Amino acid sequence: MEERDLLLRQDEDEIELDELDLEERIQEQQERLVEKALLLLENKQYADLREMLGDAEPADIAEFFDELTEKQTLVIYRLLPKELAAEVFIELDPDQQEYLIRVLSESELKETLDELYYDDTADVIEEMPASVVKRILAAASPEQRRVINELLKYPEDSAGSIMTTEFVRLKKDFTVGESLEFIRKVGIDKETIYTCYVTDPQNHLIGIVTAKELLISPLDKKIEDIMTENVIYVKTLDDQEQIAFMFSRYDFLALPVVDNEDRLVGIITVDDAIDVLQEETEEDFAKMAAITPNDTEYMKTPVIRVWASRIPWLLLLMISATFTGLIISSFENSLAAVPILTAFIPMLMDTGGNSGSQASVTVIRGISLGQVEFRDFFKVVWKEIRVSVLCGVTLGTAALFKVMLVDHLLMKNADVDWNVAVVVALTLLATIICAKIIGCSLPLLAKRIGFDPAVMASPFITTIVDAVSLLVYFTVAKQFIPQMR
Amino acid sequence: MEERDLLLRQDEDEIELDELDLEERIQEQQERLVEKALLLLENKQYADLREMLGDAEPADIAEFFDELTEKQTLVIYRLLPKELAAEVFIELDPDQQEYLIRVLSESELKETLDELYYDDTADVIEEMPASVVKRILAAASPEQRRVINELLKYPEDSAGSIMTTEFVRLKKDFTVGESLEFIRKVGIDKETIYTCYVTDPQNHLIGIVTAKELLISPLDKKIEDIMTENVIYVKTLDDQEQIAFMFSRYDFLALPVVDNEDRLVGIITVDDAIDVLQEETEEDFAKMAAITPNDTEYMKTPVIRVWASRIPWLLLLMISATFTGLIISSFENSLAAVPILTAFIPMLMDTGGNSGSQASVTVIRGISLGQVEFRDFFKVVWKEIRVSVLCGVTLGTAALFKVMLVDHLLMKNADVDWNVAVVVALTLLATIICAKIIGCSLPLLAKRIGFDPAVMASPFITTIVDAVSLLVYFTVAKQFIPQMR
Repeated sequence: MEERDLLLRQDEDEIELDELDLEERIQEQQERLVEKALLLLENKQYADLREMLGDAEPADIAEFFDELTEKQTLVIYRLLPKELAAEVFIELDPDQQEYLIRVLSESELKETLDELYYDDTADVIEEMPASVVKRILAAASPEQRRVINELLKYPEDSAGSIMTTEFVRLKKDFTVGESLEFIRKVGIDKETIYTCYVTDPQNHLIGIVTAKELLISPLDKKIEDIMTENVIYVKTLDDQEQIAFMFSRYDFLALPVVDNEDRLVGIITVDDAIDVLQEETEEDFAKMAAITPNDTEYMKTPVIRVWASRIPWLLLLMISATFTGLIISSFENSLAAVPILTAFIPMLMDTGGNSGSQASVTVIRGISLGQVEFRDFFKVVWKEIRVSVLCGVTLGTAALFKVMLVDHLLMKNADVDWNVAVVVALTLLATIICAKIIGCSLPLLAKRIGFDPAVMASPFITTIVDAVSLLVYFTVAKQFIPQMR
Repeated sequence: MEERDLLLRQDEDEIELDELDLEERIQEQQERLVEKALLLLENKQYADLREMLGDAEPADIAEFFDELTEKQTLVIYRLLPKELAAEVFIELDPDQQEYLIRVLSESELKETLDELYYDDTADVIEEMPASVVKRILAAASPEQRRVINELLKYPEDSAGSIMTTEFVRLKKDFTVGESLEFIRKVGIDKETIYTCYVTDPQNHLIGIVTAKELLISPLDKKIEDIMTENVIYVKTLDDQEQIAFMFSRYDFLALPVVDNEDRLVGIITVDDAIDVLQEETEEDFAKMAAITPNDTEYMKTPVIRVWASRIPWLLLLMISATFTGLIISSFENSLAAVPILTAFIPMLMDTGGNSGSQASVTVIRGISLGQVEFRDFFKVVWKEIRVSVLCGVTLGTAALFKVMLVDHLLMKNADVDWNVAVVVALTLLATIICAKIIGCSLPLLAKRIGFDPAVMASPFITTIVDAVSLLVYFTVAKQFIPQMR
């Protein structure tokens, strides 16, 4: 086929592209990139391949690497321009990174390390086995080793662990013109030049200047006259999730990080904040579904690890649920007297669980977003009580009609009478109120005692509410149904 | 008290601040800001107040507005420097915005409109009643009206609805020096100057240049020699959630938006992308808890609206759950013969529901993140089958031992024997396998037929799996327990 056919095919496809949505378009373009790249690789058209990949985004090239054998990975990695190679390297899976570190020559490894930002190198090192870490540190310069070691000391999920140390530092007596000249010299190696940091001789942060301000101010103005002095900063040990929320609250492109002596040690850029937001969101989703969070993609996680992340919670919840069984056992005789009551158990348990989950997820998200605090406890509970009375009355009434109209009249179920209908309706009302109170208060209490509120989501709430709903059910039934006494 | 006392108090507090985590620190600082501002307002020290607020972040000032009466809001709004006032305006609640629009004089409203970006004005207009919209459009210049009307035509959640039209446009034959000069002139009114867009005379996007490239390139270089031609762009009707994911995939600061004729019409900036990510995340959490998404904060949402967002789902799920009741009814006689079986119903239903939710939430998130597609259907199901066999065997064995050791031996429950234990264990195994298959396949099928996969989360899966687990339970019981036949 070759060139001409490929071009023709491409033209045909162009037309279709317009009909796809963005996600499908990106995927289609990605597939074409892979297809063409594999063809060029097969035909050993390395110059063309290099040119084609040179125009592609690092994330797309990394995805292409998933389709390659290890040897092909190495061939392509060596083809890429140095800077792009380093950008692709960061996007690869740890397995692929490990392979490359093992097979690259020491000088190639040095080149990659020179292009990587220190924080990225530290992230890679954290994922590697000891022998690979040794190779990396051996190839690093003394200065690189020093900074990387510093970064590795910060605890996981702290500001220190996600910050970069490559930023532009200005002095307050620079003019705008001198600053622009300075950026021209040092800017190329910095992760961002769009926020510049003004420090005093002791390295304390005294202000920031944005590139926008530099670009629109007269060249002879002093930095101290245009800098913003009231700078929002974070500390090295601050929690990454809270930092990520600051980006969304204040629309920053970067945030400075200071140490305990208020010296500027690094910055966090918005792209890292987005990654943190995503990572924490996925963790919250996992916890809410009773899964131990895990940062590899589902499709790439081995079955045994998927099992390991799910089984402890299932086991714990199963054991908790056996207590609900005890409640049923203890009312066994009453149930035997009025067997129709058993038929309503699933509906009552499910509705209770759903009502509780609604409240708990709402409150958990409110806590996560900083909109709900423990001191709002009584306000939240009072709100949920009012909501639950409304929900309970609506559902109770609906259930009353359903039981009498459908079960009693339509299906002529002789066991179902007004007594049963009233018991079901009242149980619903009481269960929903209890469920919503439990659902909204447990996450707040968890937060208060330093637990993760997200764990108090649907599965736990459901288990607790199940027991409550059965207790309510049998208690109410005893009042209204003569045979149960 | 005044100045000195206030300063002293502040010093005391400084020490404590260090012990707080970031979230608490921000909150504490916010409370101090509010306290001081209220004091200054009370004492009518407007100049000091103006200076203090001038240093604060718009988001913090907007939160401060929540503590004020409407009249105070107006006083403070008038005190703020024009640009800051507009930034604060955007962060306010719609009620507060509406109040200000109604009470500001026409010339004040004009000033605010001049400072707002068009996309922000369009967002405000979408929330306002007709009479307020009229006021805004009357105060707008003909050019402002034209652009705002254009923006309002784009559907909600599309690229067009979140893009801004204020960006820097360069020509390919500009030099770097000319471009910097141009930015110095027009940059102040642009939402970002960090990515500049190169267009041809027909306004087609032909390349981009970052401010970093401009700042580190020789002044006499031509833009066409330094611009990136292979530009990733989106279309006006593309979905905002998919766009937001592109920001996290490619680490962009801004993305260009083109119309159907490939003409550049706007850009989307990373701060808007973060807002979209957050908004969509909250929507997904709500859907997974069977709540209709709602973009006001929980604490500010009236009880009746909370009820309205929850009750349709509770009702729907309650009605679905009554079918599970039918299954129990139809096995009523068997249950009456072996009443102990009822005691295991909650545990079996809960475990089934939890297993199903784990699979469904995992797959739903995978779909959201673009990691799982419909074409992976069989791979996903096969993976979940293997995981579920492992989980089922583990939990089944645990249940077998628990029933025989605890219920039979320890608690000497005569009704519990090997038959019952085996029935429970086998039911668990079968239920978990069914639950995980249902849990992983329904979201994929929903996606396939164009439904939102997030709705196929815990509540729906639980309801379906409840029915399945009971059917399995009674079927297995009939095989092993002689009294049931």
